Amino acid sequence: MAYELFYWDGLQGRGEFIRLALEDAEAAYIDVGRGDEKDGQGLPAIMAFLRGKHEQIPFAPPFLRDGEIVVSHVANILMYLGPKLGLSPSDEAHRLFANGLQLTITDMVMEVHDTHHPLSVGDYYEDQKDAAKIRSKAFLSERLPKFLGYFEMVLKHNPQGDAHSVGAGHSYVDLSLFQLIEGLRYAFPRAMRDFGTSFPALGRLHQRVQKRPNIQRYLQSERRIAFNETGIFRHYPELDIDVDKAS
Amino acid sequence: MAYELFYWDGLQGRGEFIRLALEDAEAAYIDVGRGDEKDGQGLPAIMAFLRGKHEQIPFAPPFLRDGEIVVSHVANILMYLGPKLGLSPSDEAHRLFANGLQLTITDMVMEVHDTHHPLSVGDYYEDQKDAAKIRSKAFLSERLPKFLGYFEMVLKHNPQGDAHSVGAGHSYVDLSLFQLIEGLRYAFPRAMRDFGTSFPALGRLHQRVQKRPNIQRYLQSERRIAFNETGIFRHYPELDIDVDKAS
Repeated sequence: MAYELFYWDGLQGRGEFIRLALEDAEAAYIDVGRGDEKDGQGLPAIMAFLRGKHEQIPFAPPFLRDGEIVVSHVANILMYLGPKLGLSPSDEAHRLFANGLQLTITDMVMEVHDTHHPLSVGDYYEDQKDAAKIRSKAFLSERLPKFLGYFEMVLKHNPQGDAHSVGAGHSYVDLSLFQLIEGLRYAFPRAMRDFGTSFPALGRLHQRVQKRPNIQRYLQSERRIAFNETGIFRHYPELDIDVDKAS
Repeated sequence: MAYELFYWDGLQGRGEFIRLALEDAEAAYIDVGRGDEKDGQGLPAIMAFLRGKHEQIPFAPPFLRDGEIVVSHVANILMYLGPKLGLSPSDEAHRLFANGLQLTITDMVMEVHDTHHPLSVGDYYEDQKDAAKIRSKAFLSERLPKFLGYFEMVLKHNPQGDAHSVGAGHSYVDLSLFQLIEGLRYAFPRAMRDFGTSFPALGRLHQRVQKRPNIQRYLQSERRIAFNETGIFRHYPELDIDVDKAS
């Protein structure tokens, strides 16, 4: 039976980390939020589940249904799917490390979201633009190099070589790092201009994932929603700055 | 061998969610950050690990070492410890749900942190106080009731009764919900004044956990650090407001 991914239509958002894993593995899945209401899909299907009677109701999308199993949160979903899709390391120590890396990506994604919504999650960007400029500057000059420097270090520390973040093989963490870099380059092209020079192993990982046949096909398909200003990674030129790579 | 918890000294912070599980289960553990430098503990031991040569270096504390296994992030650590400490449900569906609930708590904790640090993670509260007032108002009037209403609904939806968040028994999620409520009541006593009336099942869960003998002993011990203004839950009276429970 196909996996059912529940996520909002019209944006990549957090759901995209799940889509990339499903697409890379050529898994059968239904993108419920993008489906037709006539087929019992679309936004009403998401809202019906969130307001329904299931024992395990998530706080918010994305969540995944696999028969009777319901899993919420990107890291939890990827940890669940990983072994089934061949995208997880096989031993416990590396699986725990993969989950820790994915949760570090989660933390960074939350901070990226805060760059355009520093004052209120529920209000418009336009009503918090001045605060967003301050928050973005702090993020780009302090947090961005700290997070990317950390992931670069993880690659360099891998005894199996710096092509993969965990163990000897490709994993869902590598796919999520690709998406993270894609998003950061879309949102902050100035700040990310020298990315490949500053973080060479991450740059190579990004290129390697981009060339995977299933990922290439997916990125060129209509299933890949373009980045836009309703997702996590938003390109507001006034928030993007040149950052001193030495900081 | 005793578990080794790596977390900053002087604050409850995110480490407290781990301490509560270890204390509730009477597990042997070393609170490395609070130990003596002469014994190879304290802050230098944390920094040495973060700058060291281990294959699996976390981005930040808290992390747990169990022999060769290193686990970072609260939800990941609790998922790892849960079965060993008797604090996890036994079936996969409930374990995935428990992890999803713990990650919802993680999300809320991040938003609580943002109430006093909306503009920059690295700068002082005093330098972002005006923005913190705006963010806190949005958090207390919109997000707080949404999150607590969600957890109340989870308890009420539990087919095994509303005494536990997952399945029929006590779990690490219940302990974390207790800590979340403790922290919110410390930071926002005005906003939380009618908490037990508005969210009765959560109020009963809080009281049940507080009365567990090992938790009672721990809360009265010197091992329990008092809430203070270096942690996640900070009491700044200027950020606390009365909130309309109907919103």
